[in-house]
Amino acid sequence: MGKQTPIQYKDAGVNIDAQNEALARAKSAIRASFTPGVVGDVGSFGGLFDLAAMGSQGHLLVASADGVGTKLEVAKMAGIHHTVGRDLVQHCINDILVQGARPLFFMDYVGTGRLNPEVVSDLIRGCAEGCADHGLALLGGETAEMPGLYADGDFDLVGFIVGSVPREQLLDGSRVRPGQRLLGLASDGLHTNGYSLARKVVFERLGFGVHDKPAALGGETTVAEALLAPHRCYLEPLMPLLQKGQIAAMAHITGGGLLDNLPRVLGEHDAWIDRSSWPVPPLFQWLCEGAAIEVSEAYRVFNMGIGMVLLVDPAQEASIEAELLAAGERVYRLGEVRSGTGVVRWLE
Amino acid sequence: MGKQTPIQYKDAGVNIDAQNEALARAKSAIRASFTPGVVGDVGSFGGLFDLAAMGSQGHLLVASADGVGTKLEVAKMAGIHHTVGRDLVQHCINDILVQGARPLFFMDYVGTGRLNPEVVSDLIRGCAEGCADHGLALLGGETAEMPGLYADGDFDLVGFIVGSVPREQLLDGSRVRPGQRLLGLASDGLHTNGYSLARKVVFERLGFGVHDKPAALGGETTVAEALLAPHRCYLEPLMPLLQKGQIAAMAHITGGGLLDNLPRVLGEHDAWIDRSSWPVPPLFQWLCEGAAIEVSEAYRVFNMGIGMVLLVDPAQEASIEAELLAAGERVYRLGEVRSGTGVVRWLE
Repeated sequence: MGKQTPIQYKDAGVNIDAQNEALARAKSAIRASFTPGVVGDVGSFGGLFDLAAMGSQGHLLVASADGVGTKLEVAKMAGIHHTVGRDLVQHCINDILVQGARPLFFMDYVGTGRLNPEVVSDLIRGCAEGCADHGLALLGGETAEMPGLYADGDFDLVGFIVGSVPREQLLDGSRVRPGQRLLGLASDGLHTNGYSLARKVVFERLGFGVHDKPAALGGETTVAEALLAPHRCYLEPLMPLLQKGQIAAMAHITGGGLLDNLPRVLGEHDAWIDRSSWPVPPLFQWLCEGAAIEVSEAYRVFNMGIGMVLLVDPAQEASIEAELLAAGERVYRLGEVRSGTGVVRWLE
Repeated sequence: MGKQTPIQYKDAGVNIDAQNEALARAKSAIRASFTPGVVGDVGSFGGLFDLAAMGSQGHLLVASADGVGTKLEVAKMAGIHHTVGRDLVQHCINDILVQGARPLFFMDYVGTGRLNPEVVSDLIRGCAEGCADHGLALLGGETAEMPGLYADGDFDLVGFIVGSVPREQLLDGSRVRPGQRLLGLASDGLHTNGYSLARKVVFERLGFGVHDKPAALGGETTVAEALLAPHRCYLEPLMPLLQKGQIAAMAHITGGGLLDNLPRVLGEHDAWIDRSSWPVPPLFQWLCEGAAIEVSEAYRVFNMGIGMVLLVDPAQEASIEAELLAAGERVYRLGEVRSGTGVVRWLE
């Protein structure tokens, strides 16, 4: 056996140097996200976090895990890798915000077939910048090079977030009442859901490339710009309302759309929604026409222009609307809550 | 456009029913992992956790993210999917244990090309059972079906863990002193590292299949059994020693082996290790011969039979060794700590 050519780890497709280079490139962005809650520096075994330093002692923790879905494929096609990290962070923030939680820290995972230090550092930097902008720490993460499992150039990006909420501010659906109003906040494009269908429509059925500027989108916007618009984060406009106790419940409109996400907080109530209360953006109209899909299907796959729904007291609807408009949100009065069975119904 | 065949979400390769079925199958295993810290049930937006209910109020949080690497490929080849979930949990527990932390909760992520409910529920059940066995809660997770990104039948599995440690029990390397002894705890096989190289050697160079029983492994053990042996968890034997303050530092021997992992806690000290102090198991000898790899390379890729290294006071070495032996561990006196530059040196 001694005469055989030795196999090195690199020969098996795992390049530890490339991994170190990717981390080194992202390090300053990671450090820039550090908050007073972070104990220690980048690169220890586990990330250390001090809740007391963030005023979160005694709060409940809220944790969530998510990915970006095949928005990653669009990023890959366009060669733009820093926005999907931000997408992931902002998606995760919204996911725990609906329970009233403030985000504390985030961890990322990048799985890849062959580690390209530039791509991986862009992905991690995107996460770090998203964290820094919203006041949470990128506390740690993992990059795994797995030849064979992912094809060359393919990668997955996964995020894990931990936040906290004072027990009395927890939103768990128990404050939903008939008569409450539904306020919708506009999304910025597809956010991170419906990309498998959207890609099939745009690239396969309609035959567009990422650099094309479809007339249906006004002729100025490229497919890449339209499909890679970052997932809007609702933390800053909503946190003051949460702290004042003015939101009874919230639903983040992700996979499953309005039809599947609102019922998660409705309990024994129905959400009656007037679909003419907001303008469905051209992107969604274009995708629906291109796919020739049923409207009922579209509202289950895409957010259709609404990224977050708030349930609020009718007496406070106008003031909340005004506060959110002043904060730069596009706000729509979607409809109201009635007794029911926990489903979304369309007001015709 | 109206005459075109409508595209449904399923046509784009995303099957929400299969996702729901996978979760339903795993639900009872998930609930069985719930501890008094868990607030609410499976399936809310974010997992809720009450630190006070676990006696962790005021403690530092310790968080880590990891994957199983291409051990997943072996699991796929063998059609055995429940052990890699346990691998991941036990790996993550060890990762935060080295800082003195007790695990509180875990979240999983499964990314896949086409969702096979049986495979996905096996993966999640493996995680849930690993959690239940070690007293932490599987608090939530995410399953993503991403046609195009993963090939049919391919999947990745990622875990996030959060634990806690009383500030005064935190292990951060600051208690390392010259003269401390190095105790090694035996691993159970490769754990979750070095699989890209191991697969290349076993399946490509040596031409074995997963069901073969190589003479080098005694002729009774299949390749699948040898390569899928679960990552050993050191939580239960080590927690009593940690609580007594008898461990000065610890290193979990993962990717990078003894040579890269011990330096992470050494600071300005060297770890002098006598490689004749423990028996390198036949699996590692077989892999090294098959790969014709340099010994120096092997100790950087594989754990070589040592899964965890403890730094302890020489006066307590014998009693700690006895306690660990009584707990069922295989313990080896590897060597000692001396002043130095933060590297591992071999005692010849």
